[in-house]
Amino acid sequence: MRFSEGVEWGMHCTVLLAQAAGGKALSRRALAEHYGLPEAYLAKHLRALAAAGILRAVPGPGGGYQLARPAAQLTALDVVDAVEGTASPFTCQEIRQQGTSAVPPEQCRRPCAIAVVMAQGQQAWRETLRGVTIADLVERIPAPVREQIRAKLGGPRP
Amino acid sequence: MRFSEGVEWGMHCTVLLAQAAGGKALSRRALAEHYGLPEAYLAKHLRALAAAGILRAVPGPGGGYQLARPAAQLTALDVVDAVEGTASPFTCQEIRQQGTSAVPPEQCRRPCAIAVVMAQGQQAWRETLRGVTIADLVERIPAPVREQIRAKLGGPRP
Repeated sequence: MRFSEGVEWGMHCTVLLAQAAGGKALSRRALAEHYGLPEAYLAKHLRALAAAGILRAVPGPGGGYQLARPAAQLTALDVVDAVEGTASPFTCQEIRQQGTSAVPPEQCRRPCAIAVVMAQGQQAWRETLRGVTIADLVERIPAPVREQIRAKLGGPRP
Repeated sequence: MRFSEGVEWGMHCTVLLAQAAGGKALSRRALAEHYGLPEAYLAKHLRALAAAGILRAVPGPGGGYQLARPAAQLTALDVVDAVEGTASPFTCQEIRQQGTSAVPPEQCRRPCAIAVVMAQGQQAWRETLRGVTIADLVERIPAPVREQIRAKLGGPRP
């Protein structure tokens, strides 16, 4: 089970856009070149981030993508959900109700304990990612690296 | 991102084998029929569970699979790891070191904050599943259902 590369790409692009001067958009090409990514593949993930309300597409010359919300109001979970979707990786097919020992429906009113523990694991994962904002991730970039990015993007001085 | 159906199948088969009388093996066919599963596909997952030391293959007539360890010493995580592997779903490709703004290696001695949060999420998921044993899952089956299974498999009275 693997995440798409779009999770890493989307996370980095969102963190980068959080460091651009307020309102400044970066083009798809600029984002791709910044990280040496294939622009055509990145495009799909940028569209997904925009569709999810994380990025906003700015049309026209000088356009591109900018954050749609303040970085402190966007979480790591928002980005992963936008790229990967929100479906749980585990789907309970209710096999307890199948086969020669099928449990009758009246004894299956409570969810299967196996589905419950899988959902709890998923919940723990989601809570962890929900607890970290894009602003937090910017904060965790080493100061000299942040300064280089600021100089390049013309972002505000920290 | 989806788990293989083998996660649900493997979890149910392991929980079922935990309810069989001590040492009693269930054949691959019996397991498949119990849950109405395709035997050939189930076989692959049972082999993976045996390779991981969760089940033990018992050869010969009357053979099949039995638990390789007591149910209280097997966790939900053990089963998922056996079926899905232990690789993290997120792979950091270090894209911060790529492209026109590549960060030099000497500024990348600490792991990328994005990789860190993804690893923390994975860790939270793993801890949750590690905290639930196969014995716990047997306990959570409704008593009447457990009694029907016990009667069918000749397991010990609870």
